[in-house]
Amino acid sequence: MKEVLAVIRMNKINQTKAALSKAGFPSVTAVKVVGRGRQAVDFQLAKAINENPQDSSDLLPLLAQGHRLIPKRMLSLVVPDDNVQQVVDALIQANQTSNPGDGKIFVLPVEDSVRVSSGETGAVAVDEMTG
Amino acid sequence: MKEVLAVIRMNKINQTKAALSKAGFPSVTAVKVVGRGRQAVDFQLAKAINENPQDSSDLLPLLAQGHRLIPKRMLSLVVPDDNVQQVVDALIQANQTSNPGDGKIFVLPVEDSVRVSSGETGAVAVDEMTG
Amino acid sequence: MKEVLAVIRMNKINQTKAALSKAGFPSVTAVKVVGRGRQAVDFQLAKAINENPQDSSDLLPLLAQGHRLIPKRMLSLVVPDDNVQQVVDALIQANQTSNPGDGKIFVLPVEDSVRVSSGETGAVAVDEMTG
Repeated sequence: MKEVLAVIRMNKINQTKAALSKAGFPSVTAVKVVGRGRQAVDFQLAKAINENPQDSSDLLPLLAQGHRLIPKRMLSLVVPDDNVQQVVDALIQANQTSNPGDGKIFVLPVEDSVRVSSGETGAVAVDEMTG
Repeated sequence: MKEVLAVIRMNKINQTKAALSKAGFPSVTAVKVVGRGRQAVDFQLAKAINENPQDSSDLLPLLAQGHRLIPKRMLSLVVPDDNVQQVVDALIQANQTSNPGDGKIFVLPVEDSVRVSSGETGAVAVDEMTG
Repeated sequence: MKEVLAVIRMNKINQTKAALSKAGFPSVTAVKVVGRGRQAVDFQLAKAINENPQDSSDLLPLLAQGHRLIPKRMLSLVVPDDNVQQVVDALIQANQTSNPGDGKIFVLPVEDSVRVSSGETGAVAVDEMTG
């Protein structure tokens, strides 16, 4: 089993839910997060400091912090190994605009899974798309 | 070490905290999430569409999204390998009503752990129930 | 690749963002959590019960729950294996006050990573500090 962890744009949640349901993976957990990508510098801030260096001592600490954290949604699904690619494809299809900020998907190993209501463990406790 | 990740009903948080403390695992991190399980279709919505198919074009996209996300709590504990079963048992004991929606528990491998205050790493940095 | 997962004090978020940017790891996802550490007993509560045992029947369930959950921030970064130590060092440098409550850092294995905008997978999809 694997955990597929995706950080996506806030306004893509409904489209993503629909894409996952359609692909046969309705089970999902979502959480509000804030995040930033690899852009290390707030260029607007850097420009303001460059244009007026004598008067920017209060802006320098902001620049050092890097750019601001943006509200995002993080989704988590746990699926059998054989279904990871289908889940990743559904996530890309729903979220790819080809602009920075589309988000990231990570795949982590999961060693066991338990359905609390029944006590079932292992692969039977996660959604499996069969056929 | 393992991370034990549990998604449980919102109203079970206090009972779960008590069960974990009693079992010797007080350290826990909790986050508000929304989630849905394997039920892929909102049956009330499907029934409404069936009864009045001509007039349901605006409902079909909702059906495709699958049912709504329900507020839940996600808990994370990191414990030594030998304590995973005790933590899982405490989580099941506090959360099992045998109805759908009781939640899921996942076990993920953790390669290292650091206690920030002391810089200690490895198993000593996580709670261990001894004796 | 590894996921570095850190639970830190709420008031350390800006200092931590700055330290991570400075160390070359701007990409981070943050979420509001509540957590508690290994202190299993609320000592103020235990003292009140000890001093007035006849009158404490309503306090005992609180004691069994263990101490309260404190608001914290959880940060997640995914980085190449070779950069884990630099990230951990930056997190410790920004968060260590040597008091209980400084937080914990966990390192989890990540098997794959996808940048949604480009579809790139693997190590190229995560930030890498080169040179």
